[in-house]
Amino acid sequence: MGKQIEILDTTLRDGAQARGISLSVDDKLNIAASLDMLGISYIEFGNPATGERELEGFRRVRRHSLETSRVAAFGATRRKNTPVAEDAGVRALEASGADTIVIFGKSWDLHVDHVLGTTKEENLAMIADTVAHFAARGCHVIYDAEHYFDGRRSDHDYALETLRTAVQAGAHCITLCDTNGGTMPNEIYEATREAKELLRVQIGIHCHDDCGLAVAGTLEAVRAGATLVQGTLLGFGERCGNAKLTTILPNLQLKLGYDCIPEKNMPMLTTIARQVAEIANISIPSYSPYIGSNAFTHKAGMHADGVLKLSRTFEHVSPEDVGNMRRILTSEMSGRNALYHKIQRIAPELDRDSPEIQRIIEKLKEAEQNGYTFEAAEASFELMVRRETGRMPNFFDLIFYKTIGEQPFSSTMSSSAVVKLRVGDREAVNAAEGEGPVHALDTALRKTLDEFYPRLAESYLCDFKVRVLNPEAATAAKVRVLMTSTDGDATWSTVGVSPDILEASWTALSEAVEYKLIRDAKL
Amino acid sequence: MGKQIEILDTTLRDGAQARGISLSVDDKLNIAASLDMLGISYIEFGNPATGERELEGFRRVRRHSLETSRVAAFGATRRKNTPVAEDAGVRALEASGADTIVIFGKSWDLHVDHVLGTTKEENLAMIADTVAHFAARGCHVIYDAEHYFDGRRSDHDYALETLRTAVQAGAHCITLCDTNGGTMPNEIYEATREAKELLRVQIGIHCHDDCGLAVAGTLEAVRAGATLVQGTLLGFGERCGNAKLTTILPNLQLKLGYDCIPEKNMPMLTTIARQVAEIANISIPSYSPYIGSNAFTHKAGMHADGVLKLSRTFEHVSPEDVGNMRRILTSEMSGRNALYHKIQRIAPELDRDSPEIQRIIEKLKEAEQNGYTFEAAEASFELMVRRETGRMPNFFDLIFYKTIGEQPFSSTMSSSAVVKLRVGDREAVNAAEGEGPVHALDTALRKTLDEFYPRLAESYLCDFKVRVLNPEAATAAKVRVLMTSTDGDATWSTVGVSPDILEASWTALSEAVEYKLIRDAKL
Repeated sequence: MGKQIEILDTTLRDGAQARGISLSVDDKLNIAASLDMLGISYIEFGNPATGERELEGFRRVRRHSLETSRVAAFGATRRKNTPVAEDAGVRALEASGADTIVIFGKSWDLHVDHVLGTTKEENLAMIADTVAHFAARGCHVIYDAEHYFDGRRSDHDYALETLRTAVQAGAHCITLCDTNGGTMPNEIYEATREAKELLRVQIGIHCHDDCGLAVAGTLEAVRAGATLVQGTLLGFGERCGNAKLTTILPNLQLKLGYDCIPEKNMPMLTTIARQVAEIANISIPSYSPYIGSNAFTHKAGMHADGVLKLSRTFEHVSPEDVGNMRRILTSEMSGRNALYHKIQRIAPELDRDSPEIQRIIEKLKEAEQNGYTFEAAEASFELMVRRETGRMPNFFDLIFYKTIGEQPFSSTMSSSAVVKLRVGDREAVNAAEGEGPVHALDTALRKTLDEFYPRLAESYLCDFKVRVLNPEAATAAKVRVLMTSTDGDATWSTVGVSPDILEASWTALSEAVEYKLIRDAKL
Repeated sequence: MGKQIEILDTTLRDGAQARGISLSVDDKLNIAASLDMLGISYIEFGNPATGERELEGFRRVRRHSLETSRVAAFGATRRKNTPVAEDAGVRALEASGADTIVIFGKSWDLHVDHVLGTTKEENLAMIADTVAHFAARGCHVIYDAEHYFDGRRSDHDYALETLRTAVQAGAHCITLCDTNGGTMPNEIYEATREAKELLRVQIGIHCHDDCGLAVAGTLEAVRAGATLVQGTLLGFGERCGNAKLTTILPNLQLKLGYDCIPEKNMPMLTTIARQVAEIANISIPSYSPYIGSNAFTHKAGMHADGVLKLSRTFEHVSPEDVGNMRRILTSEMSGRNALYHKIQRIAPELDRDSPEIQRIIEKLKEAEQNGYTFEAAEASFELMVRRETGRMPNFFDLIFYKTIGEQPFSSTMSSSAVVKLRVGDREAVNAAEGEGPVHALDTALRKTLDEFYPRLAESYLCDFKVRVLNPEAATAAKVRVLMTSTDGDATWSTVGVSPDILEASWTALSEAVEYKLIRDAKL
């Protein structure tokens, strides 16, 4: 067993301050449940002083029984010149009912002067009174030394004095916070080491990513002796965000041998990260370390061939260890070998040297020369292989579509479309309006197919990209349309290319629908 | 003056291998021009062995005269058991005409055995022959030691031997590559220091972000003596990406005192990053260090108050230093100064505190909230300022347009459009066909205006980009259309935003025409 590191997730407090993140009480409870399942030590649930809604959250999370995680409440030291028992913030912390209390206070003389507008002595008294108040009530007290590193650069002795004050008042853990995110990792190492040597309590670290160094700073603090790591699961936080736990946990546990969460939970990391992203309504960038959809994706021919020969030639950990998957992309650059493996997953009877494989590869090359790209459109790739190997039922044929767009428009929407299809031996025609002709076309296609394939209603488009391929041809340029669809269970992407954006969209739309029909038919 | 660090940007080579990135030769030339403007030392333009298109790029970039940057070509050591002069890859490197040659070779015994399938001795001969070949031709040779850190862990002596071989063969710089991105920064420090001590040439560093540590690893290598930094401007690259130069440059230059690019260029960093993102058709994450739209955004009450009292209380550098802006949410936008200078260029009579400036800034803020971006659309910005300051003649008004698109189509083209305009006291209507509805609309607009403004025929659209702004809304999403026009003499860009791609295109098209009319009227 490695050295134990405690993790404090502040997604629900510091993370909730990020621009574009807005969480309901239910969202917060659901995220807390996910973090608990992962085995996070502390969940900083909020700042109860911000209002009644926050207190309601604390009441409700107390009724949920979390299995592993302890709920922490976050708040400031008492106001200047106010008795601690009468301070509104302190009272709100009490009202939260949390048994772990995180108190933040000032370590930077500049902030004491300019932001608090008080004396250094009063600031020390504010820290001492507030920490002592909660320690006396039997709470587990974590003291967050805000702007500690800036304070240490500005007035080393005073910064240390604020930490000593918190320890003497009974804090169980002192967290050094790089609040502005401007400190270099080697300085974080030095300062953490010093604090570890001078203070006889647990040391924590809290980094922000303004220099792109929050993960590195956290690892350096741990190397220097910190045993509490604060961060947010997906890196949410003000400005450039907080230290990202989905990166830190595998770094500490899989690569450096520390124990942060139960070993059996690490393979749930990717799934739990996606759950939290869903709840927060954000998408995880594809290039995110460990959990991104591209983290174990190989495109260039040589890399892909190397990975198939021996995965550790191009992978520093196994994707399974963090619950992610390896992806070998289909593209101009990838070798025949990688391609063959992908085709074989769809058509297992095909031999490496069979004429069908040769034909599929030729088709693929031709399509890529015409501007198609299948690396991000696996469903279109599968449909192509199915067509070439007799695995593709004829679900419907286009008889015609017509779209009309106009400005100004007299109805509620600026476009409309008519779609006529042949389905088996029947013909069906329907029409719809839309915000632009592609939206109208999408809606009309689904309306027309509804009576034949009612389960289609389960699926919808969730992403849509347009790329102009030869922009120098301006409005006559070829466009590539990439669409991602989901039915809640699976997600798939399709592609279409044409100088006419409507035709390119039609290809991607109709393949999106065909892929859903293939799935439902369990072919 | 600080210690000089050279920068090699590999956006056009390693970055182009990222999933979802696809660059035309024109895109590559435009990105090279942006990197040159920033003052990057080397631009790795591509791997000429990948095909004729890549060689065409090298031919064209040679004709462009870059002011600061040197163009580098990237390729492998010769194949095993092949004379260097007969090796196809080596010949392609020669054909590139680049004077800086980056040769990558194997340092990891595992790769020599399993990927190359050759002996350690032959691998050394491959390195020596290839480096010596280009050194003898007078090229500047950078040797990229692929998987150096993995190799060093596996067989320390052999890994070092590969470096010594390259140096003895005449390499001018040895770059240590963390190809799989799995090495911790402190190990990168140790290994770089060792190489620096043992080898009498320049040492470079090339990191990948699989552990979220590419920036940190790069800084550690520089601290240990590396003076060439490889990365990609926006972090594009396989899997989790390469070391991100927009983060590394300010860290090295503003925070650590090294010299990487001319001091006067650093305030262009954000603008150039956005240009490159536009060309690559990706969006910069809002939380990106230094250049993201949220990097200096303050939301929480206390932080915002602190920043307004004294900016360094919550900012580790000034946004102006990297050409970014401070944003206080719920309070008025700042960066007023930079904007004021831009407005004054168009309307020199306006005073910094005039109500017109205030109104223009409000309009701009509103437009940006609706998805407009004027960074890549200076012509639309100018037209907006002209409208607000009474400098905009009324060239024409739209009475209506109607477009029709269909499949299958009976005529030569799949779309047609009718445009009716008011010009002065006359009305004119005309129609045109097109490859898609936007092309038809563009052609119809120009046909209708031709009799009134014959000089319009000199201008045409030369670039066209479509960006989906809220892709999760799928086909009902808002799109931003960016168009670049030229009349052979000048080039200008315009922008339109709408959920209806036709309406967004109409805005950009009609402003493109208005700008040409303004130019011709010499206003």
